[in-house]
Parts: sequence; structure tokens; C-alpha cells
Amino acid sequence: MARHRVGIWLVGARGSVATASIVGLVALQKGWTGDVGLVSRLPVFQHLPLSPWQDFCVAGHDIRATSLVESASQLSADRGALDPQLVKRCQRELTAIDRRICQGTVLHVGETIADLAAPEVRRRRESPWEAVRRLQADMQQFVKQEQLKQLVVVHLASTEPPFDLGQLPATWPDMERMLQKRATQRLSLPASSLYAIAALDLGYPYINFTPSLGAAPPAIQQLAQLRETCHMGCDGKTGETLVKTVLAPMFANRHLDVMSWVGHNIFGNMDARVLDDPQNKSSKVVTKDRVLGSILGYAPQTLVSIENIASLGDWKTAWDHIHFRGFLGTPMTMQFVWQGCDSLLAAPLVLDLVRFTWYAWQRGDRGLLTFLASFFKHPLGVAEHDFGRQFQMLAEWAQRSTV
Amino acid sequence: MARHRVGIWLVGARGSVATASIVGLVALQKGWTGDVGLVSRLPVFQHLPLSPWQDFCVAGHDIRATSLVESASQLSADRGALDPQLVKRCQRELTAIDRRICQGTVLHVGETIADLAAPEVRRRRESPWEAVRRLQADMQQFVKQEQLKQLVVVHLASTEPPFDLGQLPATWPDMERMLQKRATQRLSLPASSLYAIAALDLGYPYINFTPSLGAAPPAIQQLAQLRETCHMGCDGKTGETLVKTVLAPMFANRHLDVMSWVGHNIFGNMDARVLDDPQNKSSKVVTKDRVLGSILGYAPQTLVSIENIASLGDWKTAWDHIHFRGFLGTPMTMQFVWQGCDSLLAAPLVLDLVRFTWYAWQRGDRGLLTFLASFFKHPLGVAEHDFGRQFQMLAEWAQRSTV
Amino acid sequence: MARHRVGIWLVGARGSVATASIVGLVALQKGWTGDVGLVSRLPVFQHLPLSPWQDFCVAGHDIRATSLVESASQLSADRGALDPQLVKRCQRELTAIDRRICQGTVLHVGETIADLAAPEVRRRRESPWEAVRRLQADMQQFVKQEQLKQLVVVHLASTEPPFDLGQLPATWPDMERMLQKRATQRLSLPASSLYAIAALDLGYPYINFTPSLGAAPPAIQQLAQLRETCHMGCDGKTGETLVKTVLAPMFANRHLDVMSWVGHNIFGNMDARVLDDPQNKSSKVVTKDRVLGSILGYAPQTLVSIENIASLGDWKTAWDHIHFRGFLGTPMTMQFVWQGCDSLLAAPLVLDLVRFTWYAWQRGDRGLLTFLASFFKHPLGVAEHDFGRQFQMLAEWAQRSTV
Amino acid sequence: MARHRVGIWLVGARGSVATASIVGLVALQKGWTGDVGLVSRLPVFQHLPLSPWQDFCVAGHDIRATSLVESASQLSADRGALDPQLVKRCQRELTAIDRRICQGTVLHVGETIADLAAPEVRRRRESPWEAVRRLQADMQQFVKQEQLKQLVVVHLASTEPPFDLGQLPATWPDMERMLQKRATQRLSLPASSLYAIAALDLGYPYINFTPSLGAAPPAIQQLAQLRETCHMGCDGKTGETLVKTVLAPMFANRHLDVMSWVGHNIFGNMDARVLDDPQNKSSKVVTKDRVLGSILGYAPQTLVSIENIASLGDWKTAWDHIHFRGFLGTPMTMQFVWQGCDSLLAAPLVLDLVRFTWYAWQRGDRGLLTFLASFFKHPLGVAEHDFGRQFQMLAEWAQRSTV
Repeated sequence: MARHRVGIWLVGARGSVATASIVGLVALQKGWTGDVGLVSRLPVFQHLPLSPWQDFCVAGHDIRATSLVESASQLSADRGALDPQLVKRCQRELTAIDRRICQGTVLHVGETIADLAAPEVRRRRESPWEAVRRLQADMQQFVKQEQLKQLVVVHLASTEPPFDLGQLPATWPDMERMLQKRATQRLSLPASSLYAIAALDLGYPYINFTPSLGAAPPAIQQLAQLRETCHMGCDGKTGETLVKTVLAPMFANRHLDVMSWVGHNIFGNMDARVLDDPQNKSSKVVTKDRVLGSILGYAPQTLVSIENIASLGDWKTAWDHIHFRGFLGTPMTMQFVWQGCDSLLAAPLVLDLVRFTWYAWQRGDRGLLTFLASFFKHPLGVAEHDFGRQFQMLAEWAQRSTV
Repeated sequence: MARHRVGIWLVGARGSVATASIVGLVALQKGWTGDVGLVSRLPVFQHLPLSPWQDFCVAGHDIRATSLVESASQLSADRGALDPQLVKRCQRELTAIDRRICQGTVLHVGETIADLAAPEVRRRRESPWEAVRRLQADMQQFVKQEQLKQLVVVHLASTEPPFDLGQLPATWPDMERMLQKRATQRLSLPASSLYAIAALDLGYPYINFTPSLGAAPPAIQQLAQLRETCHMGCDGKTGETLVKTVLAPMFANRHLDVMSWVGHNIFGNMDARVLDDPQNKSSKVVTKDRVLGSILGYAPQTLVSIENIASLGDWKTAWDHIHFRGFLGTPMTMQFVWQGCDSLLAAPLVLDLVRFTWYAWQRGDRGLLTFLASFFKHPLGVAEHDFGRQFQMLAEWAQRSTV
Repeated sequence: MARHRVGIWLVGARGSVATASIVGLVALQKGWTGDVGLVSRLPVFQHLPLSPWQDFCVAGHDIRATSLVESASQLSADRGALDPQLVKRCQRELTAIDRRICQGTVLHVGETIADLAAPEVRRRRESPWEAVRRLQADMQQFVKQEQLKQLVVVHLASTEPPFDLGQLPATWPDMERMLQKRATQRLSLPASSLYAIAALDLGYPYINFTPSLGAAPPAIQQLAQLRETCHMGCDGKTGETLVKTVLAPMFANRHLDVMSWVGHNIFGNMDARVLDDPQNKSSKVVTKDRVLGSILGYAPQTLVSIENIASLGDWKTAWDHIHFRGFLGTPMTMQFVWQGCDSLLAAPLVLDLVRFTWYAWQRGDRGLLTFLASFFKHPLGVAEHDFGRQFQMLAEWAQRSTV
Repeated sequence: MARHRVGIWLVGARGSVATASIVGLVALQKGWTGDVGLVSRLPVFQHLPLSPWQDFCVAGHDIRATSLVESASQLSADRGALDPQLVKRCQRELTAIDRRICQGTVLHVGETIADLAAPEVRRRRESPWEAVRRLQADMQQFVKQEQLKQLVVVHLASTEPPFDLGQLPATWPDMERMLQKRATQRLSLPASSLYAIAALDLGYPYINFTPSLGAAPPAIQQLAQLRETCHMGCDGKTGETLVKTVLAPMFANRHLDVMSWVGHNIFGNMDARVLDDPQNKSSKVVTKDRVLGSILGYAPQTLVSIENIASLGDWKTAWDHIHFRGFLGTPMTMQFVWQGCDSLLAAPLVLDLVRFTWYAWQRGDRGLLTFLASFFKHPLGVAEHDFGRQFQMLAEWAQRSTV
């Protein structure tokens, strides 16, 4: 395939996942780091003509008054989540990218997130439709200026409170009409969906790496089809839930009876602070929790907690306690402790998703990219939660893609 | 298919795995327990015409001067590994089965195991070939007396010291000749292989649930082909290693770089006491260790220990510490603790293996039953160690079997 | 000292701690068990003329319609928390003791506990003062019938919701007057305090093994002084908190800076079900949490959770994650997992407390028995939370007692 | 007291503990770090006129051809064991101190350590007595040049193989005579003892922070008395063993019966590499293991392993599994995981020991400084292993010191 310049548009572009993704992309482009953590660099995908890192160019939206360099420095101060030397080497590029980051929107993101926003962002008065138009203008401006062939939008902003799909119109024309009406302030679509609409309406693929609503509403999914573009989500599967979807099939395939599965998560970055709000937390807990019943075929007692422990910073520590019964009813226990650096686990997946999505779009894949299920806690349109089988879906797509 | 009575011949019939298997079989035949832990009772295998538990009848060899009731009582005293009530209810059946257990052989089992044997077993003087003939007579007598259609032999005896395959003749005719010669005392095949020869030579399927040599030598595998029967092994995958072969693919599929994987196992049953002998332990450690490199495609630093801690009895506790690097070189850690009752994890697999093997033999499967790989730490003839994929091999065989 | 028959009056006498205490007492009296777990049987206390187990006789109050045999059977079904054989051997004694258990009160215990009560207990209409009088009559009847020299009352009932001390009168005469008045239904003292008043008013020592209010109000402490008797509490220190008060001094004495201490507790017995009520839970979390600041001299971020996981029964599992900084600011981590059988950890302490209290009363100790601090999460009148030093207080009291 | 310049002489001065101690001392002198981790800075010792950090000046012996800056850089590369910024700031001082580090001796240190030495150190031919004289000359030169009032020698070199005290002469005069004789090459005192003799013979206090022999032989202890100086050891108690001596008293004081205690340690620094040699490891395991029996008063089954896992570097990870029985024989379990940075835990203790020792010497303490027991796994001349009580010994000494 011909080479093209492709844009990556990160929503929440100065957050820690975005920062790690950007530092990582720069390091890859400069040849300062290897392939570790990058799924798209596995041997099984080497036959795919995926675009080299040099072809990508990054920008995005954010609501906070900080800078990429500041965010990166904080990550590197955080017990070595990022190598301080590397941050230093990337400083010039980070500053350049920072200039391309535009003001996002805090419409219906909930109070906790809104409180993080810069004053000028919070003061802005605009209708949802006006917001969409403004966000689109930002994206188009980037595409034009950098002469990009396509723009892949990845949602990385903090988790919004849950949203009841029931109140939404079922088709895009209806939703669009309501958005354009004055009275539709009532519609109260959260920011994540406004970004999704902004992107998809322009034909840009949209990936939701968070549990926020994003492109999940049927009307927005229809928009993706109408504009002949593609999307996927939601909620990146990086740590404890990844392990759950790897271990649960073992219990299922050995016919062991899981009686209870308790998972306690502690960490202390910005995400953790947002999740301190019970509203926002509830969105997260749902996607972390639902995988078990789906894999096991029955619902053991489960408990999932996520707590903000400031001293841990980006280091997510999870303790899971699995109580199960074996043959003749004998009760047994498995526990695991996961000590991972959340942003550094997420960042390579963000880059992988962009590469796979851009390639899929080129190949003509439209609508939901279900073959990306292994990347998500709650893969839209996919009932399979077993990570091994999800990965096989990806490998098989790659196989099919080359025939 | 027509129903037949089928024999289960357990080598090490009074050991804790065999005892749990026998108590379990009785409980299943009487309807005193459910399906938990039994792979062959999973929905995915329900279309197979597997024989009901009532069709099976059990006997075997052992070298120790104990009884099934004694063994079962010890397991039930062991912090509830077996329910004391259940052991009581099974007492009459256990006593009846005990009468069908014949004296095994201690030829080349190593000193530690030989020391466990009853005096009359240790005093016995016989050549390997005489031993094979005697073991065969025991099996045939059981088949005749119980009017069995077939006999599935499962090796459950304590782990023997490692054996160098290099010194063995490559074909069965050569091996048979050497065994029959006087001078072949030198051949020094360990007991597990003599049992394998005894079984296969009579056309009985042979399953090696231990890391001992068994039917692994090419000459014995040839014997299985010549007698048109089947076999598989070796070393049941029940606990820590099972988890390893479930977690390692996760690290591989996420392209995470495992730097070191340490696994410490502690338990205190008879097996543990035998593994206290460094000779016997080395056989075990090898099969526990080799799975990682195979799945990951490279060899991280590994350490596997198994130690005899008397107070734990049958409760195998394993701590695994996995040190890995993610994107941009960030080091992270995962640990797990497995607290399982070893014999109760193994027992249902023994019954599953018998059911699957008997069905496979009926269907005409001969030689190595590679589709059983998911049951073994070291599946003969199978390079795949990823448990999820091994399970898929089993499911696909089941699918094929019914076409 | 002369030997006397001494009564043990357990409030919550059919709960799991009481049941384990009673089974244990019977086993000790019959010589069916050893000294393990009994602090009063340590060599350092062997010179004290503590009463032998034979001198004690047990009875109590409860609100539930169950029986000691039932409670004991449940504990023994709970993965061997109690040996089933032992329960069987004690059956006759348990039945006899059961007959001596009288109906307790549910006045102001909160809805969750009240819901557990037998219908006749819930239907009962009585003023707090009438309740005190009735409880006293039960105790006196037992003392008389069994010709007891003294009665030690131990509170073991489920945790009540928290109570604000501020609203209470400061002296016993004032409190008594209010209790006797009609209008004092407003006083709403919780049941635990009514039991305390009932006991202390009769000169019986009162030990509060729970976080409920009990004898903590100054007016009730004054009552103990006026009646020349003694008391202590509160909240038995049996598991996770015990470990906390052992580890925290290590961090303090090494000048290590604890940044955060997270403790997650899961278990599934009746206590756990009561603690599922956020009201009741808050009483518990407070005593579990306050020890750290006291020992460290500063307040790290802490988090304590207690969750009801039914499958665990009496087996309390706690995971604690301690994040601390060492020299030059280097962050380090310690984690522990405690898997203890809650009732069996508490039961011997109940018996120890009775023995020590009865002896102290004989020696003339009145008011708060502060030397018992090591037994409690929140030792009344004692600022010291370091378990080692608390134990030394006990040892020194024993030393002094014999001079 | 009058202020004096005092020397710190580190044996193994470029090892990771020494490096962290030196970086720490520089940081303290410059005011770049706080008191965390420093026992001598606890409030309970604030009334003692301990010398300020500015009064100390450091030098020492080493056998390796590396530099302090190199060692410090390696520690800072080791997942942030040392802050890279701090290392950079200290660079000039480290280089200056490096110049004062003299060549040590490899006499009888065992092959594994000898293999680490610079060629010129290994090639050196000298008798033990000549070595002592040379080491003394180095120390005296430093004292003279820096006009030091006293020199405290701290042994931090890698663990030597174990040594049988039985073969040694019982008095200093006898030992000295043998050392001076030609034939006494046979005496084969390990290097750690030669350093001890060198120091004590000059009246310099000697602290052995390792499990090597050092000043333990009675003849050398006599030398300390003869020269009116003081010494203490051995084997710094920094991590897993510290926790053991904190937890074991809890089990003892609760009369819980420890059935087994398993401790697995993994780490990957230079010490770990030396401990890979079974000879050297055996010295270490002994001091780690003996504490339990002493505290509990009986000997549970124990297992201690230390393994070299390269990827962990200085981060010592220990998993301990404690299996104990409570009341009525109920078996329970406690596990802990310690993830500490070994050198950063040791370094402040080295500085504390120097401060306390220098003050004790000034006060006139001679011979064994038993009040320092809390710093050591195997405190010479002290039977008490309970860390809480050992700390109290230190606090009481401090109390007495000021009367």
C-alpha cells in the first residue's frame, strides 16, 4: 500500500495514558525504544502492511491547564513509570505537540471532572451542537495543516458518570435533530459522545478506550455506518480485568466452581482521583465486573473496588481473591497481586489500536471493529470475554486480511 | 454404542490421588456428588456418548502396606481435603476394592520409593521380564473375573528419578529381546515403564499421570502401535503449572517481556516426601519448568522449587513471582498464590482421562492421544503448552468425533 | 486461694464466638484439648493461682431462635473451623447449656440485628429500665441456681450502629434517673449498654469484646466504681488489627515513613452479614483504623474495608498493603494476607479474659482493667496500641500480682 | 561534649550498602534529605548528644575495580533505588571519597568473592599478619591525614563461607602468636576477622554488618577488651528477618502454635550473586533461620531460601508462609510479601550504628555493645531476638546514658 501521513487525535491528550502514548510514539519514531508491549509488533502480525511509526502525527483535545512536559515529568517522578532520561530527550517534541492540543469540552462530564478543567474551559457557554462543530473545526484544522490522509480519534479522557441509553433517540437523524434544536439542551449527551459524533460525522474512526458512553448509543453507531467509517470500544483491558479474562476460562474449562471472586484495586493518579467520585466509579466497576459471569456461565458472588491511594501514583495494585470448589466439594483458593504501571500498560495498546484501525479502514472495514475485542473490557458487539479467544479473533482477522 | 463394563487399573492404587479418584468414582456411581471438577461433564462434551460412571470398575497395583480406608481417612483428616462423612459412606466399597489391589514392583524406582514398600514387596526377587509377566497376570485376572471389555491403566505412583532415554534400544523387538535376556538386568527400565509394557502388550491403553518414564521410550510407543492400542502422558497438570500455562500466553499475546518467573511450591503429602529426594525431585522440576520457554518463545530466568512442608499435607501452596517489562522498559510484577488440594484436583482428571481414553479407543484412535494434551504438564508429541489452545484441541476432537 | 464456682455469662451466647468458647470450655474441662491459643496458659502466667477450667459454668442471653448444637455444627461444616468429632462429643453438654440461655433484648440494636431476632424477642415491649431488670433477674437466677461466687459477663453480640456519647448524662445517678423516667425512651441506650448496666449494677464484672457501646459511657464506668466491680473493652483484637499493632511499631522504630496502609477484610459468617449494614460496619471500621495513627505518631492515608463474602464463612481473609518510604525517599511495599478462623481466634481470648478478670476481681482490682489492653482493638483508658508493650503490661501485672 | 571529627571506615566501600550509606551521608551533610529511615533521629534519642553528620568523614577498603560513582549509578538505574538526581548532585563528593578507598584483602574469602577482585588485589602475596599490618597502615594514614579523633570500622563486604570456631586459639596472645608464625598460614582466618583484628588492635571500634566471622572469635573479643575498645555484630537485620522477629513474638504471646514457617527470598544484586555460591549462602541462611526457635521456644519446621534473580537487582522480595494452629487445633495461615530495597534499608542503619557506637565509646562503653542488638540478625552475646524488646534495650540504654 502507498504510504500516507495519518493523524492520531487524543481526547484527554495531556492525561497520563495520552502522555505515555505520545512519549512512546516519539521514542519509536526516533528508534529510542523497542517493541516490548506492542501487540501489533508480534510475529503473528508481521505480514500485515501496517504503517510504520513515522507515518503518524499526533494532536488532540484536553480540558486541563497543564502541559505534556509537566505530565511526563510527573510520570517519571512516579517511581520510574517513565524513564526521566527519555522524558528529557523528548522534551522538544512534546512542546511542539502541546501546541497542537486544543480546548476540549466539559459538557455533562460530571462535576468531578469539570472541577479539573481550566477556568476558560469551564466558563465557555455553548450548546452540545456548537461544541461538536467547534471540536470538528479543531480536528479538520489539524488534518489540513499536516496534510493527513485520515485521522484516528482515541478517547482517553477521565471516566464520566454512567448514562442511561434508554432516553436516547434510536436513529442518527432523530438524534441530530434533537441536538440542533434549542430545546435539546435536555438531551445532555456526555462529552465522550460529542467527541464521537464530531469524529464519526467527519468520517474519522473513533476508538473509546474508557468506560464512558462514547459511540455506544445506536444512533451514533448508525452515524458511523452512514459516514462509512469505523469505531470500537470500550474501556481498555490493561491489568486486573485482563488477568480475570485469562484466569476465568481456566476455572471454566476445568469445571471448577467459582464461589466468589473479590478484586480490590488501589492506585493514585488523576484517574483514581476522578474515580473517587462514586458516580464516576460506578461506570468503571460495571465493566470490570461483568466479564466473569459471561465467561463462567453463572454468576459467582463478586466484589470489585477501586480506591484512590495517593502514594501509589500510576502504579495500580490489585489483589484478587478467588474462592472455588473442586471435585467432591473441596474449597480452594487462588489469589493474585498485580503491580502494574497503568499508563504504560495502556499506552502501547493505544498505538496498536491506531495502527490496526487505520489499516482496517484502508481495507474497507466499516462499523464496529469487533476483531479488536481483546483490547477492551467491554467490547461492543462481542459476547466473547475469554482473552485467549479474543486474541485468536485478532489473529484470524490478520490472517484473513492478507489473503 | 453398546454398553460395556470397563476396568480402571490404577498403579499406585492406595496413594492419595488414586484414593481420591476411587472415593470420587464411588460417590459418582452412588449419586452422592455432582459434576464439579469433571472436565468430561462440561456442556461442550455432552453430545459424546461417553460411558456412564456405573460402567467402570476399579483395581490396581501398589507397593505399600496400607489400605484404601486408611488413605481416605488420612485425606479427610487433612483439613477437610475429603469430607469425613463421605469417606464413611464409601467404607464398604473401599474395602472391597482394596481386596483387588495386587502387589506392584519396586524395580528401579529409586531408593526413596523402595523404602516405602512393604517388606514382602521389597524382598521379591524377579527379573524385569518376570515382573512384567506377573503384573500382566494380575491385570488379566481382574479383566476375566469382572468380565471387562477393556482395561485402562493409569500410572499414579510416586515420581521416579530421571532416566536417560539415550541408552535404550529404539524398537520394541530389540527392547523385548534385551528384556528377556538374563544380561538385560542391565537395561534397568524403571517400574513405570514395566507397567506401561505390561499394559500395552496386552492391548490395554496406558495413561501416565506422573513425570516418570512410563511409555515415553520410542520402543514402548512402538509397542502401543503394534498392539493396536493407545496411550498418553505425562505428568498431570493440576495446579501451579496449569496457572503458568494460562498466564504465560497473556504475557506473550501482550508482547510483555517476562524477565524472571519464580515458582515456589510447598506441600506435605507422600508425594512431597518422595520429592524430598533430589533425584526424584529433578524429574518433577523439569516438567514444571519447561512450559514457559515454549509458550513465550524465549527463556526468561526461571526458578522452580518443590519443598516438603509436613504441616500442609495434601494442600499444595505455590507462590509465583513474575517480573516483566512493559512498554518503554517499565518493570512490573505479578504474583499469585495457589492453595489447592492436590489430590482432589488430580482425581477428577484421572476419571476424565479414563472416560475419554476408553471412548477414543472405541472410536479407533491408536498410538498417542495428543488431543488430551490439556491434561498434562508434558504432553507427549505436542509442542503446544498454552492451556486455552490445548483445551480447544480437546473440544475440536470432540467435535470431530461426532461427525 | 479457696476454690469457688464462677459463672460466665455470654451475651450473644449462640453466636459463633460464644459457641466456639463454650465448645472449647467443655473440651478443656474434659481434657479433650490442649492449651494452644490460650494466653493465660503461657509459662509467664503459670505462677498465678488462676482458677482451673473445672470451676467455670456457662450461660447467657441471645436473641435468635437457634441452638448451640446447630451453631456448632455450622462452624464444623465451615471447612473444619471446628472438628466435627469434637462437636459430637460435646453434644450433651451443649444441650444442657442451651437450656440456660435466656432471651436477650433488641432495644436500639439497629434494624439489621433486630431482623435476626426470634419473633417473640422482637415482639416484646419493655422500657430500657424494664429490660435491665429482666436481664438482671436472668443473671441472678443463674448465680443462685448454680451457687456461683461471682459472674463474669462477656459481651459477644453482633456489632451495633455507632452511638454519640455526647448526648448522655455524665454521672450514674443522672443516667439512672433518666432510665427510670417514662420520658427516657428518648435516651435510647443500645442493648450492649443495658447489659453492661445490668451486670455492673449487680457487681458483676463486664467485658465488652465487641465495638458496641457497652460500658464505655462515663456514667456507666462510674456505676462500676460505685458497685465496686470491674470492667474492660472494647473489641477483641484477633486478626488483621492484631497484626497491624505488631507491624506498625516496626515501621515506627525503624523510622520508616508509612505513606498509606490499606486493609481489605472479607468473610461470611453472621457477623459479616450484620456488618453488611453500613451503620453497623462504621462502628467496626473505626476501631480497626484508629490504631495506626496512635502508634506511628502521624496519620498515613488509610483505608479499611470489611465485606461479606458468603463462601468464606468464618474464615476471615485480610489483605493489607503497606506503602512506605525508606532512607532517601525510596518507596517500598509490604503486603500480608491473613487467613484465620475468626471465632476460633476469639474464643480462647474470651476464656482468658474471664480467668484474668475473675482473678483480678478476687485480688481487689476495681474499675477499668487496663492491664488487659492487649486483648482489645480499642482498649478503654489506654493510649498504648503497640501489641508488644500491651503484652508487657499484662506480664508486669502478673508479676506484681504475686509479690 | 566537645565536637570532634570522626572517621567511618567501610570495608566493602564500593558495594551497594556502602555506596548508599555514603550517598546518604553526603545528602545529610548537605541538607538534601530528611531523617526517614534513621533510627538515631527518632524522638526517643533526641536528648542524646549524638554527633551531627557534619562531624563524620568516610573512607574504606574494597577489592573491586569499580568506582563509587559507577556503583551509585547502577543503584539509581535499579528501578529508582537511588534518585538519579541525587547521585548526580553527589558526584564530586563521591569521586573525592573514592580516592580514599584502599585495596582490601581476599585472604580466605572463598573463591566466589575472590573472583570479583581486581587482578592486582588477587595477585598480591602476603601472610595474614602482613595483611593486618597493611590494612592498619591504611586506616592510620586516613586518621592522620583527616585529623580524626576516632575511627569506626564497619564491615559491609560480601558474605564469606562459614568458619568453624573450634579450630581457633581461645586467647588473643595465642592467636597473635600463631598469626605471626610462618606456619600459621594454616590458621586461615577469613578476611573479615583480619579487618576486625586490624581495627580493634588500634583501638578502633568494629561493627560487623554481615554474617561473616569478623570479631566473633573469643580471642578477638579479648583483643577488643585489651585495647579498651568496643565492637558489635553480626548481620544487619533489614528486611524479612526483621519482620520475622516482629511477627514471631505475636504468635508466641497469643500461644499460637507455629507448625511451619517458610521464607523464600529473591533478589539480584552483587550480594545475591555471591550467595549463589552454596558455601557463602549457608552463612546467611543460618542467621536468618535461628531467630524463630529462640523466640517461640520450640522449633517449627522452617525453610529459608535465598536465590539470585538478576532482574530484581537491589529489590529484595521475600514471601513468607506461616502455618499455625489455633485453639482446638484449627490450622490457619499468614503470608507476607516484602518488597524492599536492600541497600537503602541497610544504609541508614550503618550511619546509626556509627553514631551510636562513637557516642558509646565516648561514654566509656567497652567490649560488646549489646544494646545495639536490634540492628542485627545474630546479635553477639544477646539471647533476645524479639525486635520490640531489643528496641527497648536501645531506648533504655539511651535513657541510662543521660542520667
